[in-house]
Amino acid sequence: MAEHIVSSYDTDLQDLRRRISEMGGIAEKMLVDSIAALVRRDMPLAQNVIASDMRLDVLQREVEESAILTIARRQPLAVDLRETISAIRVSSDVERIGDLAKNIAKRALAIGGQFQPQKIVVGVQHMSDLVLGQLKDVLDAYAQQDTAKALDVWQRDGAIDALYTSLFRELLTYMMEDPRNISFCTHLLFCAKNIERIGDHTTNIAETVHYLVTGETLAIDRPKNDRSIDATVAGE
Amino acid sequence: MAEHIVSSYDTDLQDLRRRISEMGGIAEKMLVDSIAALVRRDMPLAQNVIASDMRLDVLQREVEESAILTIARRQPLAVDLRETISAIRVSSDVERIGDLAKNIAKRALAIGGQFQPQKIVVGVQHMSDLVLGQLKDVLDAYAQQDTAKALDVWQRDGAIDALYTSLFRELLTYMMEDPRNISFCTHLLFCAKNIERIGDHTTNIAETVHYLVTGETLAIDRPKNDRSIDATVAGE
Repeated sequence: MAEHIVSSYDTDLQDLRRRISEMGGIAEKMLVDSIAALVRRDMPLAQNVIASDMRLDVLQREVEESAILTIARRQPLAVDLRETISAIRVSSDVERIGDLAKNIAKRALAIGGQFQPQKIVVGVQHMSDLVLGQLKDVLDAYAQQDTAKALDVWQRDGAIDALYTSLFRELLTYMMEDPRNISFCTHLLFCAKNIERIGDHTTNIAETVHYLVTGETLAIDRPKNDRSIDATVAGE
Repeated sequence: MAEHIVSSYDTDLQDLRRRISEMGGIAEKMLVDSIAALVRRDMPLAQNVIASDMRLDVLQREVEESAILTIARRQPLAVDLRETISAIRVSSDVERIGDLAKNIAKRALAIGGQFQPQKIVVGVQHMSDLVLGQLKDVLDAYAQQDTAKALDVWQRDGAIDALYTSLFRELLTYMMEDPRNISFCTHLLFCAKNIERIGDHTTNIAETVHYLVTGETLAIDRPKNDRSIDATVAGE
């Protein structure tokens, strides 16, 4: 009987992991495609990204509900309890990553027709490539319960924040040079901000992996390198 | 014995409610103060807002942990289970509202020295007043388990999105009129976006209240009136 309970619990956990893995795959694809839609002005691709967000929302609800039911039914303790809590947290972060990618896709649709210097868009893509690497690594770290890999992601977020700050400055400079740049540069500012926030969610997931494996919480306030709020533009 | 269990469970719930009520009070004050700091260029007030976010983070962790422990220990069913799940969701939304208010306070510090036309700042304040009313109402609706009040908040979010879109257009116009406006208008754009996102979190809380009372989930996709992504500027 005890074994039966254990194996039901294991089935519950496997089910949670499977759903989160599917969510991770969708979120990665949404990020890649939203940036591709922005760079190549591919409107149908942007529409696809927007459409796939719905599946992510449904999966997140399912993970949340079944994790809670698992806790109520099986009364897990220690690491088992942490695993269900972590599933809730990770699915929430992945769902929000999807929301942010969807928002980039919407902006890709909005600026589709406007002239955009390729140089700036390339900066956004570079930032997105970095964040995508973080996202893949942290999802692997979660799947493998690899806290060293998670800590590595956690520490690398500073590079993304620094890149965001420099992109932010560059965009402001373009806006000041020519008022015709303002409209699409504003969209790109929000896209860059969204990518930076996706980076923040990858560090949240890294913190969850650390908690899952060790039972300890990483410091709440991570040192941030985002200086964009204080950014002033050269020559101003 | 059964009575003992019931009353322990009630104590757990009361404790969750008390913590969430404290969180709501802190978040409301952070929003009010961050906007006041922006409008009056009150730097010490902005610093206060930033400092109070730490308390909110701690409370959110406490709510999450004790809600989960309550579920594991007491195995609540139906409405009792919904109450603990709702506590987790609401505390997460309130914590994020605090983050957004903190970000506004940081921007208030950053643009403190720069010239800012009072007219635009007034628009941001007006939007914030609307959202603050929503936040107060939805926290009341949660405390009173009043689903009619929650639905009212849920439906009123459209007005905030519409206001955000018009403010967004106005800010773009100012930026195009004079490049010297670009730097602080960009900060105000992000402030307005943060306020709009606080509005989104109040509708999330409204959805949670509805779920708590009825056991049913409101439609995942609420009709949005945020047209700012498509906004083009008159005369462009």
